[in-house]
Amino acid sequence: MPPLILAINAGSSSVKVTLYDSSTLTSTNTPKSIAQCTIDGLTAPPATLKYHHHQSEKPISREVEGVTTQEDAFKAIMQQLEQDEGLVEVGSKADYAYVCHRVVHGGEFADAQVVDEETVQRIERLSDLAPLHNTPALTLIRTCTTLLPPKTRQIAFFDTTFHTTLPRAITTYPINRTIAHTNALRKYGFHGLSYASILRLTSSHLNLSPAATNIIALHLGSGASACAIRGGKSVDTSMGLTPASGLPGATRAGSVDPSLVFHYTHRAGRMSRSSARDMHVTYAEEVLNKESGWAALAGTTDFGVISARAMADGGDGKGDEGARLAFDVFVDRILGFVGSYYVALGGRVDALVFAGGIGEKGVELRRAVGRGVECLGFEIDEVRNADVGNAAVVDIGRRTEGEKRVLVVRTDEQGEMARGCLEYMEKEAKETKETKEDV
Amino acid sequence: MPPLILAINAGSSSVKVTLYDSSTLTSTNTPKSIAQCTIDGLTAPPATLKYHHHQSEKPISREVEGVTTQEDAFKAIMQQLEQDEGLVEVGSKADYAYVCHRVVHGGEFADAQVVDEETVQRIERLSDLAPLHNTPALTLIRTCTTLLPPKTRQIAFFDTTFHTTLPRAITTYPINRTIAHTNALRKYGFHGLSYASILRLTSSHLNLSPAATNIIALHLGSGASACAIRGGKSVDTSMGLTPASGLPGATRAGSVDPSLVFHYTHRAGRMSRSSARDMHVTYAEEVLNKESGWAALAGTTDFGVISARAMADGGDGKGDEGARLAFDVFVDRILGFVGSYYVALGGRVDALVFAGGIGEKGVELRRAVGRGVECLGFEIDEVRNADVGNAAVVDIGRRTEGEKRVLVVRTDEQGEMARGCLEYMEKEAKETKETKEDV
Repeated sequence: MPPLILAINAGSSSVKVTLYDSSTLTSTNTPKSIAQCTIDGLTAPPATLKYHHHQSEKPISREVEGVTTQEDAFKAIMQQLEQDEGLVEVGSKADYAYVCHRVVHGGEFADAQVVDEETVQRIERLSDLAPLHNTPALTLIRTCTTLLPPKTRQIAFFDTTFHTTLPRAITTYPINRTIAHTNALRKYGFHGLSYASILRLTSSHLNLSPAATNIIALHLGSGASACAIRGGKSVDTSMGLTPASGLPGATRAGSVDPSLVFHYTHRAGRMSRSSARDMHVTYAEEVLNKESGWAALAGTTDFGVISARAMADGGDGKGDEGARLAFDVFVDRILGFVGSYYVALGGRVDALVFAGGIGEKGVELRRAVGRGVECLGFEIDEVRNADVGNAAVVDIGRRTEGEKRVLVVRTDEQGEMARGCLEYMEKEAKETKETKEDV
Repeated sequence: MPPLILAINAGSSSVKVTLYDSSTLTSTNTPKSIAQCTIDGLTAPPATLKYHHHQSEKPISREVEGVTTQEDAFKAIMQQLEQDEGLVEVGSKADYAYVCHRVVHGGEFADAQVVDEETVQRIERLSDLAPLHNTPALTLIRTCTTLLPPKTRQIAFFDTTFHTTLPRAITTYPINRTIAHTNALRKYGFHGLSYASILRLTSSHLNLSPAATNIIALHLGSGASACAIRGGKSVDTSMGLTPASGLPGATRAGSVDPSLVFHYTHRAGRMSRSSARDMHVTYAEEVLNKESGWAALAGTTDFGVISARAMADGGDGKGDEGARLAFDVFVDRILGFVGSYYVALGGRVDALVFAGGIGEKGVELRRAVGRGVECLGFEIDEVRNADVGNAAVVDIGRRTEGEKRVLVVRTDEQGEMARGCLEYMEKEAKETKETKEDV
């Protein structure tokens, strides 16, 4: 059987696993998975398992009792894959040749890393910068090391890697340089797997080489960020040292006055009690990442619900003003970054790209952002915007050639990892061959 | 003798006093002072006194020993004014009819306030939000109450007043709404006296009514901010709850990842030891406001020196890379706000305005910003930019009519207070007259 690749994406309350048959991957095609299994709701039990196998007619979905940690979830997913008799590709765990982990914070790692003892230690050390975000992946790296055969190779992919091209004036915070250097305090940027996927899909759609592609990309999900890409390279992005800065998210404040949290609580600098024991997270970071965002304004993390309620409001002050406010705040902050990145790209922008769950589904949000950026020459076509279908890349602008197009792109972080894994496999095969020839 | 107006601007290490003869002020002219006296260097003794009297040929400047507080400085300035025999307008302290104080944080105050016991208490309470910034003015309000005759009227002008027009989606931080409400956590914005002055001077120069004027204003000094003004009203500005956010300054970090300071120091939430005993300032706020900014990158607070060193570097990596970095970081952050506010104004911008010490003197900085915003239609004329002379408003753009002009404006915060004082005097006179007529 051809080697299988498992791509794992562990979040704070979910685990998503996508299975690829490496023999179907090439360096140019879009990776097609053979199965996908997600468990979410870990922090609000019972958790829900969703499973889809490429040859089955429709996805299954069921509640799973007693699943409250990433480790529980991963084991339940492994069981689901092994027990599905229709999934002939998987016999036992020995069939998994590669496991890809999405790790949020990669610090100065310039590339994906094969997981060994040293890599794990380095990831642990740099996770001080983002304990809330790196802990799930670290947990599953350890679980896989125990659960899977020793010959299964694990590779860590970092959300920071895509942004290692940021210029120094962008990565630099104007703070004491010695402390900045010692504590590794700089802008890193995140959502890098997504931006790599967006760049690939967009340049292909525009018939440009990635190195000739300039885009303003918006990854809008429960975590949201923006990225200015010039000549295929990240030249600015909205998240910083950690994912806390930039755009607001479902429970994240985004960029706020850096002194705000000290006026929010007298306990800002103390360690949070609610975080797991081995995470060193201040109460302030808990507030900024977990107790803020549009949920704090509108009472729900579901931006679809917020959009619907905001539109029902009709702007007449009646209806759900919290939802209206959350919607308006999000649109305002997005517009700010688009304007800023338009200047960063010198106005030479091939496309403004909407991606992520809200980018894909947020018809109203795209319309509002579209109206705001008309002054920069982007124009949304109302009909195209209203129904984007299921294609990987969809034009929703009035212009469908030349510059300043507006696109919705189905970013694929899992596929990006699978592709990275393929590159690794090819490199390894070449090295093995060369070694043999040397002999 | 006509009533005299003293306009006081107290900073963390300086006190500036400007004297006006109220009989020379009208609601339309530019206030002309009759004397000006500044003491700076309070935190780096010996302090220096600079004095200029409108009929004297040139300013005097001398070191003043033992002057280390705002109160010392104010008393020394009072003495200078009384002792100058050439300054015939001032006989004794009884000649000061009005004293205007610039207060940084005015919270929800929508207007200037006559100082009485209650006002002082309210300013004290809201100063919890900005102790570093409000304490100097509060100190001098108390000094004046003791030092000047009871009939002298004191008026507090707030840097937040100009921004009370900010829309709610702009003032709102996406954080817990109850805590935001209880602790008055919102974007306030600062440099309001300067923006009011900039608006007045710009609209007059453009032959527009203030209510028809759209500008992107940059107040660039050791404290720096940006403001989007639509129809004469502030619709966004870069500072927030406190002056800590937005653009970097001489010793201020500006907007950084809100979790950065917790990775900078473990003492973030503790009270600062170096602040005066009656100020409740966390160590984090001390770091963000006093130990960062371009001084942290380049080793000097003088942006003129930084520009010169950065240009000497020639971009070839040689020379002073700290200065080059500080220059590039400042330009990048300014460009970000210009792009963002261009979108906020829907691209309808009458002028991009440079103001403040660096805005007036920073030929290189203006050139660099000008190059960056060409993609938005602003174009700087190299020759005009190189020598802006001394006029209150100078065109430095290639266009000198229509939209998208580029201006250098000599903002006048003291004059803005004097004008506000005149308005108050006229209102008071009218009320007195009406009361008499009623009788």
